[in-house]
Amino acid sequence: MNVGIYIYENAEVLDFSGPFEVFTTANRLRDTEQAFKVFLVAEQAGPVCARGGYSFNPHYDITNHPDIDLLIVVGGVHTEELKKANVLQWVADTAEKARMVASVCTGAFILAEAGVLAGCQVTTHWEDIDDLRQSYPDLTVVEGRRWVDEGRIVTSGGISAGIDMSLHLVSKLFSLELAEKTARQMEFDWRKN
Amino acid sequence: MNVGIYIYENAEVLDFSGPFEVFTTANRLRDTEQAFKVFLVAEQAGPVCARGGYSFNPHYDITNHPDIDLLIVVGGVHTEELKKANVLQWVADTAEKARMVASVCTGAFILAEAGVLAGCQVTTHWEDIDDLRQSYPDLTVVEGRRWVDEGRIVTSGGISAGIDMSLHLVSKLFSLELAEKTARQMEFDWRKN
Repeated sequence: MNVGIYIYENAEVLDFSGPFEVFTTANRLRDTEQAFKVFLVAEQAGPVCARGGYSFNPHYDITNHPDIDLLIVVGGVHTEELKKANVLQWVADTAEKARMVASVCTGAFILAEAGVLAGCQVTTHWEDIDDLRQSYPDLTVVEGRRWVDEGRIVTSGGISAGIDMSLHLVSKLFSLELAEKTARQMEFDWRKN
Repeated sequence: MNVGIYIYENAEVLDFSGPFEVFTTANRLRDTEQAFKVFLVAEQAGPVCARGGYSFNPHYDITNHPDIDLLIVVGGVHTEELKKANVLQWVADTAEKARMVASVCTGAFILAEAGVLAGCQVTTHWEDIDDLRQSYPDLTVVEGRRWVDEGRIVTSGGISAGIDMSLHLVSKLFSLELAEKTARQMEFDWRKN
């Protein structure tokens, strides 16, 4: 199962490092072969600077990554991404081919702008609920939830809620037992909504 | 206040990205000037690959960083660090000059090996409690705590407990109000021990 996390300049650090930690820890705790191949995907090759001045090196860019089974789009200062036709087209195409699609925090705006969330019940960071509601009136935006699971599409609340959602995805894609072992390994109090 | 986070090959991703998120988010929520300058310090210049294949670019190496007021040493696959005389000497020297010293997860082994924890009450990841106890019999190693505060020295439990401890450090160094605002911004359920 290939987990591709889309990141960009000024993405929120915990939005992508939290899910990365969950899926790679789940891999370590598996008895047999690797459950998840996890990689970071950026618009272009080269280092990316996340919010607060945190420079990292994505594994792939949007032109050369392996097939993605689970696409995760993260939040942060997401507004520039909403203006990029090539990124939105890539998100739409990749989401269509993926088995599952998820967002963390304001990553929901990117999925919405790419047309991936049409008609869905979704959530985002508590500070951005009204904005998401007003910007995309076809969505049912709910608050006070760690994540909203619409089957193939799952959206989470802000920042650390992406960890809770990722544990839910491990549970859904693999087993509740592995998700609970992962949370315990991370010493994380998993809030199951 | 300069917060220097010591990282290395195969450090645990959330051990450093969690505290980085806490201190940079606290900065954003401050009304006036920057409260914390946060940076990652490695043994040498160049990219570092954290556990699970996560490549990032530390701000400084141990020869060229600014003065450190709060030194945080993180965990992960820490055993190689225990063999490096230059790193242990740097940790000892930097800890001596710092106002405060903290560890996340198995970072406690590095502080202990550098002689920084002598006689302290400390904690680490639940899986490593016995090992820490046996390796450094002069320490009082406690379990079941998110962090142990010895005044100038604070050690946390595993991985995500580093986030709880970092919020505690924001509270201690700045204000409880700012720490609570930061936790809320991160949508993190702060466990205050």
